Amino acid sequence: MPDRYAYLGPEGTFTEAALLTLPGAERAERLPFATVPAALDALRGGAVDRAVVALENSVEGSVPTTLDELSTGEQLQIIGEIHLPVEFALLVRPGTSLRDIKTVASHPHAQPQCRRWLAANVPDAEWRASTSNAEAAQHVADGLYDAALAGSFAAARFGLSVLASSVHDVEGAVTRFVELARPCSPPAPTGRDKTTAVAYIRDDHAGALLEILQEFFVRGINLTLIQSRPTGAGLGSYLFWMDFEGHVADARVGEALMGLRRVCADVRFVGSYPAAAGTRPQVRRGTDDADFAAAADWLARIRG
Amino acid sequence: MPDRYAYLGPEGTFTEAALLTLPGAERAERLPFATVPAALDALRGGAVDRAVVALENSVEGSVPTTLDELSTGEQLQIIGEIHLPVEFALLVRPGTSLRDIKTVASHPHAQPQCRRWLAANVPDAEWRASTSNAEAAQHVADGLYDAALAGSFAAARFGLSVLASSVHDVEGAVTRFVELARPCSPPAPTGRDKTTAVAYIRDDHAGALLEILQEFFVRGINLTLIQSRPTGAGLGSYLFWMDFEGHVADARVGEALMGLRRVCADVRFVGSYPAAAGTRPQVRRGTDDADFAAAADWLARIRG
Amino acid sequence: MPDRYAYLGPEGTFTEAALLTLPGAERAERLPFATVPAALDALRGGAVDRAVVALENSVEGSVPTTLDELSTGEQLQIIGEIHLPVEFALLVRPGTSLRDIKTVASHPHAQPQCRRWLAANVPDAEWRASTSNAEAAQHVADGLYDAALAGSFAAARFGLSVLASSVHDVEGAVTRFVELARPCSPPAPTGRDKTTAVAYIRDDHAGALLEILQEFFVRGINLTLIQSRPTGAGLGSYLFWMDFEGHVADARVGEALMGLRRVCADVRFVGSYPAAAGTRPQVRRGTDDADFAAAADWLARIRG
Amino acid sequence: MPDRYAYLGPEGTFTEAALLTLPGAERAERLPFATVPAALDALRGGAVDRAVVALENSVEGSVPTTLDELSTGEQLQIIGEIHLPVEFALLVRPGTSLRDIKTVASHPHAQPQCRRWLAANVPDAEWRASTSNAEAAQHVADGLYDAALAGSFAAARFGLSVLASSVHDVEGAVTRFVELARPCSPPAPTGRDKTTAVAYIRDDHAGALLEILQEFFVRGINLTLIQSRPTGAGLGSYLFWMDFEGHVADARVGEALMGLRRVCADVRFVGSYPAAAGTRPQVRRGTDDADFAAAADWLARIRG
Repeated sequence: MPDRYAYLGPEGTFTEAALLTLPGAERAERLPFATVPAALDALRGGAVDRAVVALENSVEGSVPTTLDELSTGEQLQIIGEIHLPVEFALLVRPGTSLRDIKTVASHPHAQPQCRRWLAANVPDAEWRASTSNAEAAQHVADGLYDAALAGSFAAARFGLSVLASSVHDVEGAVTRFVELARPCSPPAPTGRDKTTAVAYIRDDHAGALLEILQEFFVRGINLTLIQSRPTGAGLGSYLFWMDFEGHVADARVGEALMGLRRVCADVRFVGSYPAAAGTRPQVRRGTDDADFAAAADWLARIRG
Repeated sequence: MPDRYAYLGPEGTFTEAALLTLPGAERAERLPFATVPAALDALRGGAVDRAVVALENSVEGSVPTTLDELSTGEQLQIIGEIHLPVEFALLVRPGTSLRDIKTVASHPHAQPQCRRWLAANVPDAEWRASTSNAEAAQHVADGLYDAALAGSFAAARFGLSVLASSVHDVEGAVTRFVELARPCSPPAPTGRDKTTAVAYIRDDHAGALLEILQEFFVRGINLTLIQSRPTGAGLGSYLFWMDFEGHVADARVGEALMGLRRVCADVRFVGSYPAAAGTRPQVRRGTDDADFAAAADWLARIRG
Repeated sequence: MPDRYAYLGPEGTFTEAALLTLPGAERAERLPFATVPAALDALRGGAVDRAVVALENSVEGSVPTTLDELSTGEQLQIIGEIHLPVEFALLVRPGTSLRDIKTVASHPHAQPQCRRWLAANVPDAEWRASTSNAEAAQHVADGLYDAALAGSFAAARFGLSVLASSVHDVEGAVTRFVELARPCSPPAPTGRDKTTAVAYIRDDHAGALLEILQEFFVRGINLTLIQSRPTGAGLGSYLFWMDFEGHVADARVGEALMGLRRVCADVRFVGSYPAAAGTRPQVRRGTDDADFAAAADWLARIRG
Repeated sequence: MPDRYAYLGPEGTFTEAALLTLPGAERAERLPFATVPAALDALRGGAVDRAVVALENSVEGSVPTTLDELSTGEQLQIIGEIHLPVEFALLVRPGTSLRDIKTVASHPHAQPQCRRWLAANVPDAEWRASTSNAEAAQHVADGLYDAALAGSFAAARFGLSVLASSVHDVEGAVTRFVELARPCSPPAPTGRDKTTAVAYIRDDHAGALLEILQEFFVRGINLTLIQSRPTGAGLGSYLFWMDFEGHVADARVGEALMGLRRVCADVRFVGSYPAAAGTRPQVRRGTDDADFAAAADWLARIRG
């Protein structure tokens, strides 16, 4: 069991709630950090054993800072993922009513998820950016703002009341968090795994993405997320973050990764880990480990 | 010439600087809005004739709110694009020196572009989120924070000094802005055009993205940006924002769009417009308008 | 109704039997020719109105001369196809028994279809080539050879006996014949049609065939036969004969043919005609005429 | 050095001429056989050590019997190939002139290669099928026919004169012969090799050929011949004969063959052998043995 976890704080954020779903996390030391890079640097430097940060949200999309840190920063490895339902509450100082609210604070990611609710319920309130929802709650407690969007679990911590719960425009929103370690051997395959890799396109040539997808397609591998991110070298220069079904130990995944490595300028392996919402993946006929082994035996025979 | 422009304000932002590059914008009425959705709603409602907002940045990537508004909000159309070099300056109250700086404020998008510079030059300063760089400058002028990251053109407006210019980690960063109108006939083709469309995957089936790319590939069309965004229906349910070379009036683009429309659950046409950085696109042999016309003539003949 | 038909003779061949399945052929003039080119030249020159020749056989494969004449000779058009079960009989002069047979004659195409039967039943007989099975029967009647492989319908014509019927190694063999006309408007679509086209590869570049197949694949068209033939310009220089489901009047077929025309050095349209063994083709979602029409309407709208 | 060779006889054919180009063949025993299957059965049964038969011709295309025997007969292996220019001569009994010629005999493959020459020079002569060009020459010597199409080297053997040489319609025609052995270890790679394999499609599903070609394409392998042949199970049921650049010992070829094996119902390896007309193949970036080895090392590292 890891002794110390870093996470995107402060206390009272959804990230802390995600971290607490990990077995043993309750008894471990949990260190909040002000930014994703700070949390990851703590892991890189050895100050903690693990870090938990958000990767994508079913409404807001991927978290650019996390993708960029894991794609281009000093290498870390995903060893697990956590899916957490996102349920915002409107937190206020006790006694505040809807018509008292002139300002609503939150992390910039929370605002678009609650925009229609806010327009309908507090149409005249102005929105204010905070570096986290918990900071927004702290600012409300301090009297700086009138209301904060945050998880209802944060109310008690800051002495606030839940004026409204389920404050979001889309039902069933989920955030996906990842558990990170320093580079290591991947967790053993479970049969319901995912793998993450980052591909740097060679040449930026026109058909590059098609070429990459064919490497997956011929081995029957389903992509669950593909996200382009700028490499920083100018508009039009991208890398691709890809999540896909299967484990690096699977023959089809191994061969696809080798193919990717050959056609790309560079590939970073970001991890293989148990899938959080894991129905067993449909493996296309001819692409499971036994098929690969049979084909390898046949090749050895015909090579004589 | 349009009379009134909406833009992501307040005054003094990069967006205003981009807007001012448009012919006639200097003499037009320019209305700043606090958020991208507010600016776009002003256009939708008829309060303005045009809107200018940021779409992507060569360091930070695409702007999710803009993509989502144009993908899923009430329909608007891109009629032009503007590339603006991004040059951050560190703005302070006159007399402030580097060692006086305890807090640096900016829009969340500016911080990652200047992170290494800040770590090297003001390692102990804390970063604070603002809803815009101009708001950050205003907060500095008000004494709330010590320094702001913003365009140097904002200094005069807020009575601040430029303590350092070229405060960014990557040289040559560019932001791409789009000029929007209500749905209309696209501007006439110039020979150096781009088209934007949004594709909703049918079925979320495994090979859907490959299928989409093949529709472009067989007509020899180069994609310049592909970006997945959640549809909001759950993790793993995506739409694809695609920018590509050519104009909807081009035969190859028209046929690709029709193909896309047939294989996708839905396609939204977001606009055809002159490319900002326009080298003439390389049109693959067999895919220019004359080739399409010759093939159509031949087909008419063999159909008898 | 056509007045005169050319066919690969002489009388008594499978080709004549195929011709006789056509409505009205019984009352028309039927002219046998010694070779496929001679029959086709009679059609080209106007001496006949139609020609019937074999195109492929389920055991022996395609008939090179027919493919080459229709691919590279003066243009003709397929307007129909006929599937005829192939049932060889061993024809002998009355009174001949198996043990009397020292020589068996046939067209070279018949021999491989009966090889195992011959080896088992007349192991010591030598095989002799004839220019047609009917000629072989004639040679038997003339006493030149002892037995002929031919259709049992040929026995009466040459005064021979059927010593054995069902003389073939594979059950259910079928030969496909085509009915040819001079270039004309194709027969009207029936909903169960096939189209034939010949593609000359441009450049002989490596991915050319893959490129061609993608033109079909993106429009959801199933190929039923693909056959490479040398262009005569040297080993490695090929053209492709392709049969596929659908009619040139179908939107998906028309667009695929135009695509083929653009990526190939040349394409020859060889005909659209009712499929002989016609189950209705499975049309992939998004590729029927209504889908094409809806997409074209949409394109017209967005083009403004 | 092999002691005994089988070839498609009789003596005096192009096949014998091809065989004589092999080092040591002049001193070996050379056994002519009447048919390709007979020659191959002699090899299978151990009566000879090697067999030489024609596989394809740049004018006439592939030789169906050879393809079928090697695809579906008891397994044999190609260990070499021979390219032989095809130069037909018109052989006659001494004293015969063009105007005396009423009949011209040849193997059915020779006739179409000389059709235009015959039409121009002996327009009234009838063509007669022989089982080989050498048999045709024998028949001319016997007085059965007036002229034979054969290699000029056959004249002396049968006491005939060369009345005309270069009797063919297309300059530069080449026939490709293969040298066969019983199943064995392939000859060592030379860097300019070819490989032959036969693929049985699984399911006859629509995209099967596209799928097969992608297995080659993603490993950067150029096909030099693809030929569909009926499996005998009915019209529309095909196998694919494929010749391609590279040696089974090459990493990219091995992986493609394994991929083929997984997506096909069955794959037969027919041989790897030095290419007769061997310019060194262009190996696409990322697909040579060193690239495969580097990718395998990387995979081993990330698998931990």
